[in-house]
Amino acid sequence: MPGPIVVINPNSNQAVTDGLDAALEAFRLPGGPGIECLTLAEGPFGIESQLDSDSVVLPLARLVQGRPDAGAFVIACYSDPGLDACRSVTKRPVFGIQESGVLTALARADLFGIIAIAEASVARHRRFMARMGVLGRLAAEIPLNMSVDESARGEKTFERLVEVGGALKARGAGAVILGCAGMARHRPGLEAELGVPVIDPTQAAVAMAMGTLLAG
Amino acid sequence: MPGPIVVINPNSNQAVTDGLDAALEAFRLPGGPGIECLTLAEGPFGIESQLDSDSVVLPLARLVQGRPDAGAFVIACYSDPGLDACRSVTKRPVFGIQESGVLTALARADLFGIIAIAEASVARHRRFMARMGVLGRLAAEIPLNMSVDESARGEKTFERLVEVGGALKARGAGAVILGCAGMARHRPGLEAELGVPVIDPTQAAVAMAMGTLLAG
Amino acid sequence: MPGPIVVINPNSNQAVTDGLDAALEAFRLPGGPGIECLTLAEGPFGIESQLDSDSVVLPLARLVQGRPDAGAFVIACYSDPGLDACRSVTKRPVFGIQESGVLTALARADLFGIIAIAEASVARHRRFMARMGVLGRLAAEIPLNMSVDESARGEKTFERLVEVGGALKARGAGAVILGCAGMARHRPGLEAELGVPVIDPTQAAVAMAMGTLLAG
Amino acid sequence: MPGPIVVINPNSNQAVTDGLDAALEAFRLPGGPGIECLTLAEGPFGIESQLDSDSVVLPLARLVQGRPDAGAFVIACYSDPGLDACRSVTKRPVFGIQESGVLTALARADLFGIIAIAEASVARHRRFMARMGVLGRLAAEIPLNMSVDESARGEKTFERLVEVGGALKARGAGAVILGCAGMARHRPGLEAELGVPVIDPTQAAVAMAMGTLLAG
Amino acid sequence: MPGPIVVINPNSNQAVTDGLDAALEAFRLPGGPGIECLTLAEGPFGIESQLDSDSVVLPLARLVQGRPDAGAFVIACYSDPGLDACRSVTKRPVFGIQESGVLTALARADLFGIIAIAEASVARHRRFMARMGVLGRLAAEIPLNMSVDESARGEKTFERLVEVGGALKARGAGAVILGCAGMARHRPGLEAELGVPVIDPTQAAVAMAMGTLLAG
Amino acid sequence: MPGPIVVINPNSNQAVTDGLDAALEAFRLPGGPGIECLTLAEGPFGIESQLDSDSVVLPLARLVQGRPDAGAFVIACYSDPGLDACRSVTKRPVFGIQESGVLTALARADLFGIIAIAEASVARHRRFMARMGVLGRLAAEIPLNMSVDESARGEKTFERLVEVGGALKARGAGAVILGCAGMARHRPGLEAELGVPVIDPTQAAVAMAMGTLLAG
Repeated sequence: MPGPIVVINPNSNQAVTDGLDAALEAFRLPGGPGIECLTLAEGPFGIESQLDSDSVVLPLARLVQGRPDAGAFVIACYSDPGLDACRSVTKRPVFGIQESGVLTALARADLFGIIAIAEASVARHRRFMARMGVLGRLAAEIPLNMSVDESARGEKTFERLVEVGGALKARGAGAVILGCAGMARHRPGLEAELGVPVIDPTQAAVAMAMGTLLAG
Repeated sequence: MPGPIVVINPNSNQAVTDGLDAALEAFRLPGGPGIECLTLAEGPFGIESQLDSDSVVLPLARLVQGRPDAGAFVIACYSDPGLDACRSVTKRPVFGIQESGVLTALARADLFGIIAIAEASVARHRRFMARMGVLGRLAAEIPLNMSVDESARGEKTFERLVEVGGALKARGAGAVILGCAGMARHRPGLEAELGVPVIDPTQAAVAMAMGTLLAG
Repeated sequence: MPGPIVVINPNSNQAVTDGLDAALEAFRLPGGPGIECLTLAEGPFGIESQLDSDSVVLPLARLVQGRPDAGAFVIACYSDPGLDACRSVTKRPVFGIQESGVLTALARADLFGIIAIAEASVARHRRFMARMGVLGRLAAEIPLNMSVDESARGEKTFERLVEVGGALKARGAGAVILGCAGMARHRPGLEAELGVPVIDPTQAAVAMAMGTLLAG
Repeated sequence: MPGPIVVINPNSNQAVTDGLDAALEAFRLPGGPGIECLTLAEGPFGIESQLDSDSVVLPLARLVQGRPDAGAFVIACYSDPGLDACRSVTKRPVFGIQESGVLTALARADLFGIIAIAEASVARHRRFMARMGVLGRLAAEIPLNMSVDESARGEKTFERLVEVGGALKARGAGAVILGCAGMARHRPGLEAELGVPVIDPTQAAVAMAMGTLLAG
Repeated sequence: MPGPIVVINPNSNQAVTDGLDAALEAFRLPGGPGIECLTLAEGPFGIESQLDSDSVVLPLARLVQGRPDAGAFVIACYSDPGLDACRSVTKRPVFGIQESGVLTALARADLFGIIAIAEASVARHRRFMARMGVLGRLAAEIPLNMSVDESARGEKTFERLVEVGGALKARGAGAVILGCAGMARHRPGLEAELGVPVIDPTQAAVAMAMGTLLAG
Repeated sequence: MPGPIVVINPNSNQAVTDGLDAALEAFRLPGGPGIECLTLAEGPFGIESQLDSDSVVLPLARLVQGRPDAGAFVIACYSDPGLDACRSVTKRPVFGIQESGVLTALARADLFGIIAIAEASVARHRRFMARMGVLGRLAAEIPLNMSVDESARGEKTFERLVEVGGALKARGAGAVILGCAGMARHRPGLEAELGVPVIDPTQAAVAMAMGTLLAG
């Protein structure tokens, strides 16, 4: 068995890393690859702006270079910061959660929707999907208009998720992506409520990483 | 834990099913979803023509309807026959190996290539990728020009895979998909030889199915 | 002169076939190709689901194989079931009415709209148009929300057609396709009411078939 | 029955008009629309340059305005000069032969090819297909490198057509369009030789025009 | 230094030419290329219809041919009439203001919007942008619903520009193009009001022309 | 007049900055915006890898933040590093030379080609053009296979530029972009040799910046 899947939370909010860890618990199977969740010490407390996103690229690449024992990497921030940089410094697979989340959604529905945290990230995500060439299958991306931290704790988060998810369905989305690393615990409830697949992008990326490692 | 991943070989060649079974052995983990490989009794011995592909659609849908215990389904033929039909008769996820293989390749490289078995399937695959909206990222698809059965046994298969894989790389492919359900055993060797990720589409689909089931 | 244009109604509702026959009466010209309208005995009473559509593929291919005297074939169901299958068993031209309707609309306006019968068919049509590569010119597809049978008889059908056609125009459609084999008798009235070209897809397919046969 | 289909040869080479007339003879059926082939008096002897093409726009629009009795118009030059102008001055349908030829090819094959007369027209055609949104389905366009007049008479034309048609097939074309108004007489022979549908664009446009008029 | 940039107003409304002249005053720099604004004598008073647009193509080409001393040309009508014609008769660069305006907007924002004068021009512009291949980045085009002349003088023009510009922003436009040659004087005020870049297309074209000439 | 155009060479090779300075000399006009060429002290000696490109993002953003007096910025490296970051920290326009070069090429030809320095940058450029949505108009990008430094000095550079430029023309390119900040001095000679427009991307970006500033 190759080394573990190293899941990197590029912000320095340990609560987010803990949430990732919990969301991935079910993916840790005896005989399967290990899953290690790390907090990027150099990261900002939350990645909310373009500059926040750019600020973690080099630290991420260094972290990847410092883990020759890893089997695969997952960058657990929905802006996929440093994806190209990390891929350029290792031959092992590196998965971005935005990319993996979108690709996984494409396996579940003709059109997909995204629940973003903040308005500001929508344009950043759009640019990345343009580069992927998948905008033709995007129904819409609608922000919760909450901070990452708020959305991670807030009591009204679920209510707002249902509201935005419903708006995405009304625009044709047959699957919905949680556009943030920190909302996995709402996934099953939201899926039940909306009646369409709801995808946690970190789980999607880890599943792809597992597939790569199990293939041998 | 929900029911098993039911992997259906839509042709009636048991050797192909056995090959799938072997290729998925590493994906069977304690505590993880079961993986059951079935041969579609009504299928032709090989799916080589459009009519072969169309002939299995209704039997596949019936098989899916007859397995309310399953957690997810994988249609293990690279033409993805019956994908829409199966999805229309169940709320559980149904993965086609062509679709999953392509989406997984998109997580590994900007441009991907496909090694088809026979010339005749190239146009069929192209139509499906057009529908997916991903032709902009296809470097090329090149056939081995062998029958499914030949390729499954043949001694010259690996040699030919290396040759075609090299031609795909020369056209810009940064990842290569084995465009058939029956070539998984060549995957590691071919990846080593080519130096770019080589994707077995059935493994890719099973990894996506596992991700869905483990997410709960 | 080659053999007749064989227009196949893939459902077993003879009233629909009779409607086709009437709609094509004007296309039967002395010295031109014959036009024969057939009911597919094996078809369901209406093609409303994906499974209905898939269920007629093999019977359609068999029917085509059994008519070596035909000059061309038209599959007269807006889901274009069996188009690939039929094309794979004959060298004579096979026209699907969805495909022909869309292509004919593209000769009349920059953006076109579609009046579907039921909500359920919209996604199926979208997948086909994605494969065709023409979604960039689709203004919208809006369903009547009636069954095929209802729409074929109902008195309120015309009223509803005008309403949906008007909504399509408001979204930019410069031509409107009747997204069903059974609404040709409303075509002239609807065109007069809307003031933009209204296309009956079976007539569009038969015109293309005539063109092929008259070219010699 | 509405008025005739007026087919306008926008160049002043009467031999080309006569060729059109002959190519459309089979489309004149008792009880069907009349087909009238006209030479645009103001046109240049051949339309080979962008300026030639632009020079006929206003005369074409005037001709259209002067024929209130016509049922439909066909502009029989593969550059589709004046298509927008003519459509803006009449409510009756106006078909361009490039547009109609391409749309008809799309009903016959996934990928199509075009045999152009001269290198200089390839870029002009490409711009028009870009506007149509169909470049994703173009296999290739290859010029004969002959003048319109040469190609209309020349003895080596057929030989060269077979050569270019073969090259288009080798690049994936499943249907071939004669990219000129004056080559219809080679259509049946070339189709027999190549084994794929060969489309004369004027016949394609007239078939679409007939369909519109016969629909009533 | 090569010859001047010849900016051609293809309509015969001298007030529009004078407006262009004023809008370009700041672009006339000592040592830089001269900028000459001409009125096309043969042009209609305003270019509002397709036929108006087509009517100026040949006169524009003749004007270009008659100015061998020019360094570059700008066609200052937002429909870019005669762009292909003019380019075919000179080796010197010819810029259309629609094309230049759109390309300049693409350097300022992911999605752009257009303020058209009249509804009738929206479809014409859309066809040109389809040909350019940039529709994927168009947020929307919304007309002022005024005549060119009205918009050039009217007191309510600015009010209406702010209204339409706001609507474009609401649809995602990060930059706004004034879709007419005659609205440059509103540019700075509108940019200040909207808070996103506002592009006068004639200034955009002249800047591109300057770049070409200064490069030597 | 607003502040100067600040052109930033993100590598620390002063010879490259000096080359930029020389290439922009003709753009400095009395009464026009100043043009200041800076070397990014923190930059690597050459930007050849993804990591080199990522390493300058934050220093570029800081430099931009530290120049509130500037009128516009140009990032003079063909990978457009830090474009999003810089745009996020200032309201003044920021131009990337890749983006500006491509957009300027689109104003000169239907299809454009790019001469890259090294093979390694081709994929990076492709990803950026995918994001721009302009790959449909790319004829090809072909590398010189030289280092930035070599290409800046080498005597065989021009010979190789002509060779690669010719190959791009053969693939349909009607305009050619020099895909590097350091080759402007070859532009006029190469344009004369190839007979199609050759675009220096830094000059293209500065022309766009001038246009923005002169518009007021």
